[in-house]
Amino acid sequence: MFQIRTDLAMEVRELYQEEKQQEIPGVAVQQDELKGVTITRVEILDQHGEKVMGKAIGKYITLECVGLRRPDADLKDEVSQLLAKEIRALVNIDKYIKVLVVGLGNNDVTPDALGPKVISKLFVTRHLFKLYNKENDEELAELSAISPGVMGTTGIETGEIIKGIVENVKPDIVLAVDALASRKMERVNTTIQLSTSGIHPGSGVGNKRQALDEKTLGIPVIAIGVPTVVDAATLTNDTIQLVIKAFSKQAKVGSQFYNMLAELKEEEKYHMIKEVLEPYSANVMVTPKEVDEIILNLSHIIANAINIALHPAIDLKDVNRYIH
Amino acid sequence: MFQIRTDLAMEVRELYQEEKQQEIPGVAVQQDELKGVTITRVEILDQHGEKVMGKAIGKYITLECVGLRRPDADLKDEVSQLLAKEIRALVNIDKYIKVLVVGLGNNDVTPDALGPKVISKLFVTRHLFKLYNKENDEELAELSAISPGVMGTTGIETGEIIKGIVENVKPDIVLAVDALASRKMERVNTTIQLSTSGIHPGSGVGNKRQALDEKTLGIPVIAIGVPTVVDAATLTNDTIQLVIKAFSKQAKVGSQFYNMLAELKEEEKYHMIKEVLEPYSANVMVTPKEVDEIILNLSHIIANAINIALHPAIDLKDVNRYIH
Amino acid sequence: MFQIRTDLAMEVRELYQEEKQQEIPGVAVQQDELKGVTITRVEILDQHGEKVMGKAIGKYITLECVGLRRPDADLKDEVSQLLAKEIRALVNIDKYIKVLVVGLGNNDVTPDALGPKVISKLFVTRHLFKLYNKENDEELAELSAISPGVMGTTGIETGEIIKGIVENVKPDIVLAVDALASRKMERVNTTIQLSTSGIHPGSGVGNKRQALDEKTLGIPVIAIGVPTVVDAATLTNDTIQLVIKAFSKQAKVGSQFYNMLAELKEEEKYHMIKEVLEPYSANVMVTPKEVDEIILNLSHIIANAINIALHPAIDLKDVNRYIH
Amino acid sequence: MFQIRTDLAMEVRELYQEEKQQEIPGVAVQQDELKGVTITRVEILDQHGEKVMGKAIGKYITLECVGLRRPDADLKDEVSQLLAKEIRALVNIDKYIKVLVVGLGNNDVTPDALGPKVISKLFVTRHLFKLYNKENDEELAELSAISPGVMGTTGIETGEIIKGIVENVKPDIVLAVDALASRKMERVNTTIQLSTSGIHPGSGVGNKRQALDEKTLGIPVIAIGVPTVVDAATLTNDTIQLVIKAFSKQAKVGSQFYNMLAELKEEEKYHMIKEVLEPYSANVMVTPKEVDEIILNLSHIIANAINIALHPAIDLKDVNRYIH
Repeated sequence: MFQIRTDLAMEVRELYQEEKQQEIPGVAVQQDELKGVTITRVEILDQHGEKVMGKAIGKYITLECVGLRRPDADLKDEVSQLLAKEIRALVNIDKYIKVLVVGLGNNDVTPDALGPKVISKLFVTRHLFKLYNKENDEELAELSAISPGVMGTTGIETGEIIKGIVENVKPDIVLAVDALASRKMERVNTTIQLSTSGIHPGSGVGNKRQALDEKTLGIPVIAIGVPTVVDAATLTNDTIQLVIKAFSKQAKVGSQFYNMLAELKEEEKYHMIKEVLEPYSANVMVTPKEVDEIILNLSHIIANAINIALHPAIDLKDVNRYIH
Repeated sequence: MFQIRTDLAMEVRELYQEEKQQEIPGVAVQQDELKGVTITRVEILDQHGEKVMGKAIGKYITLECVGLRRPDADLKDEVSQLLAKEIRALVNIDKYIKVLVVGLGNNDVTPDALGPKVISKLFVTRHLFKLYNKENDEELAELSAISPGVMGTTGIETGEIIKGIVENVKPDIVLAVDALASRKMERVNTTIQLSTSGIHPGSGVGNKRQALDEKTLGIPVIAIGVPTVVDAATLTNDTIQLVIKAFSKQAKVGSQFYNMLAELKEEEKYHMIKEVLEPYSANVMVTPKEVDEIILNLSHIIANAINIALHPAIDLKDVNRYIH
Repeated sequence: MFQIRTDLAMEVRELYQEEKQQEIPGVAVQQDELKGVTITRVEILDQHGEKVMGKAIGKYITLECVGLRRPDADLKDEVSQLLAKEIRALVNIDKYIKVLVVGLGNNDVTPDALGPKVISKLFVTRHLFKLYNKENDEELAELSAISPGVMGTTGIETGEIIKGIVENVKPDIVLAVDALASRKMERVNTTIQLSTSGIHPGSGVGNKRQALDEKTLGIPVIAIGVPTVVDAATLTNDTIQLVIKAFSKQAKVGSQFYNMLAELKEEEKYHMIKEVLEPYSANVMVTPKEVDEIILNLSHIIANAINIALHPAIDLKDVNRYIH
Repeated sequence: MFQIRTDLAMEVRELYQEEKQQEIPGVAVQQDELKGVTITRVEILDQHGEKVMGKAIGKYITLECVGLRRPDADLKDEVSQLLAKEIRALVNIDKYIKVLVVGLGNNDVTPDALGPKVISKLFVTRHLFKLYNKENDEELAELSAISPGVMGTTGIETGEIIKGIVENVKPDIVLAVDALASRKMERVNTTIQLSTSGIHPGSGVGNKRQALDEKTLGIPVIAIGVPTVVDAATLTNDTIQLVIKAFSKQAKVGSQFYNMLAELKEEEKYHMIKEVLEPYSANVMVTPKEVDEIILNLSHIIANAINIALHPAIDLKDVNRYIH
């Protein structure tokens, strides 16, 4: 059976609202507007919310900013700083914190390379703490980072790799960066999602089967993700829905035609999707042509935000000019 | 107004047939099946054919092979050899020929990088002819190659660059390699088109405005292209058509419903397409996730075919083992 | 004080012989010639050998083949097979073995990228064993692989990362692939060293401080390395030695001149080296211009050898045509 | 016979001075110090100067700044602006100028990739002038750019390619950017040379045989280059000289020993160099390990300088934040 594919909690909630015209019980939603950035805070509060959303209990914060599509460096800095603030709030930062950042995804597949590209722009320090035998520092957090690669090239579940590293590196918290799928093209490249519930099977552009969360790692896992693609089957499904909606508007309620539209079976829709996307149905993605550049841009914004959020003495001017 | 986007002559003809249920006058079509490869030869014979097809008079040869999606190295060799044979026939090769291969497209945008990647795998020889002051050779053709880059990074029309080089390098013929757009996912990665009419504005994954053909360059231009993407607007349009077709089957001819379906205005379709793809409408592409690998594979097949076709003394074993 | 930098056991032994004109006690050496490949087997047998060699007890096998500099694909296959045979002998392969291959080095610094490039060409299978819940297989070994990155980008000692992964993945043995430094240009790109003693601080092109060996990981560690650079200070030192040797030949033993040559202090040599290489003294390397291509070639040879050596059902034809 | 390899006019002059202890007749030299940057202006005035220098009549301006080795973004901006000023002076800029920038070198060989990397960061505009049918603009110069590739991959002399493009694009002036070889490690990554005499055979990291200068192209050619390597043979030769100098200091003038030192034949030196570098003698280069990063940095500085120098309305803030 076909399922709309989205990794954004705000889209899951949007879908529910479109259908049921109400909020999901057990899910709290709040929206702010700040300097051209819309911040949506979805919180899944209980098991009912969890079940309906298909996502774990926790906070999901989305920053949306259509301006990110234009080459506006000042706006990018703005978003980096807003994101840093949100990261700091979720990490609930102690002065002396040890953080491991995990860059998920495949560096050789452009729309999946966000995680590895963020890692390469972080100001890591853990080796310096070890070298100078320091336990903590007023100016810098103890930061380490890894891009474990994907299961297709390692033969190992990412979760197993990270578990082993966490046991040895002993961070207080993990930040996991990943490329996501959105339901709508308009969110690609303009949306950043933070969440306290970690990374779960089936999310991200690549495939994972094992969760990266507090339950599996024993420490909090904050996920940071950006939708870089729309799943082609989802786009096709949305197109079908749109056509049906257009016809429905013109048909009298209760007419034979109206009923036919309402009854287009899921199965028939699924066959249409398959027909359009054959033979690649499972693995076709829709991306803006300039996806290479987009990934690069977003990796800067996120890496800057992490560097600013975690290291007390590093500010925006530093990351723009001395790091990378 | 929306237009289905395809660079394959066989798909233009297919669209015409779907609508009119007949062959296009002024266009000859022939199809062969050889070792699992379907070879379709479309020849546009006169101005009528030219007008209906929206493509210049000339031969368009398409090799289709679904097996190319599997990692079957023997099949790839087979296709290289079939392609080499077709190239030789079109080039109408003299023993001592001078060929310039032009790799169109942007090496930094994965699905557009086919041309540059082919160039990097060719066995170029022109400088050796100059070095040893030779006019011709029994074993090697005088081969030169260039990837001129795209207008967005050069500020120059590709046609102007190639014109200048042709005037100085004086080849007998140009081969132009480019990434194309197909109408259907099933042709992505499985189809290679050869044509005698060169490259024309609007074709290819990138945007060109000036033709690369015999008229502009003064020598024959053979185009070699592979569809690496489907234009997202085209995919969306096809989905809409499919939904309408599905409903039409269920509606009585002449019923109000049937008429409504038939009358869905082009303009409405166009709005739906825009709504689905906003805000990227002009520049969204649909690709298999593994497009990086696909491009690499196809660049090998095409480079091998060119090396074998042009150099008398080079065969398949040589290209597989000593070149690249 | 200046120290000649080499990661090849055979060069350490060569240096000793040049100076002392005898074999090192506690070190056994044997040399074979096979199809144009010279195989030198150095075995450090006891603590005396260990101390003089500055390398751990164990076997060091070097395959040297000057022909590797030419683009001779048949020879490359030959070397892959010889190397596979040596790997099999060291791994002392059981039918059902679990192997983790570690690609050391920095993928973004060309001469240090050998390890990561080998990893990307391996046929990993561990996830398939897990997926189908198999413990062992007649045709395939359980192979996993990781490129952990370098300490400068991770902030973590490679040893710590690998320890964690080994504890979770539980392989029987680790193969660690690394780019090495040779003392002589003639060995760059033509020499492959296998060793049973793992990877030790200070070896490789990058800097590591923690060993990867049986003592730290609890399982055998086979190191596979290729010299891709000569350290510039070592090259400069060798040049100085050569000049002195040239003069020495012309001077009478016992003459003032002869004595002066013999007495050129280490410190003076060191100052000359510094003067030539300032201001980069510690980090200058000497490489052939085509190092990018060399690394690619060697990564194929080594990946092929590992694939053939470990997987019972995979032979040379398979790796050349279906993997990568 | 061995020749010291340098593409820097200031080093040729330095060598002459070391040997003859005087300035070269026909060559004017002037040196300034500005904000930590040493600017050396060598002008070859007549044929005598040309002959002794082995370089064409013209101006050679070198900016040296040891601070460029540190990650000091403010200093980089400083150098970009100084360089922009020098470019403007040499180009002798008219308000409405048409410039073609040529990026020489091989993008796939790290130390030779400077030219192509600069090209990718330029703000090209020629296509916009054509699109809007403008002849000139108050704010922007008509800028076009090309990376023609190297003869080994194109089979065509770079000079022939550029000649053809110049004839079609009709710029007023060409800027040619290339990676150079220095004699001394201390100048690698810290030195930028501008010259009015274009590019000549044998200069640059790669090999060219045909000049790119006003004589061949019919318009002025300004060369911009940065030494990214030291030729290994040159480094070895310098080492030998250093040893001889060290001994000479200790030997009495006129003694047998002193004479021997003075008489070390060029041929013997050449043999020593060959022995040290075998078997790569012609193609070994010495580079700092972090050459990848260095090239990236310098390409930013140079691209920024060109963008600022040529476009009236673009300043440093713009290039740092909106271009790339």
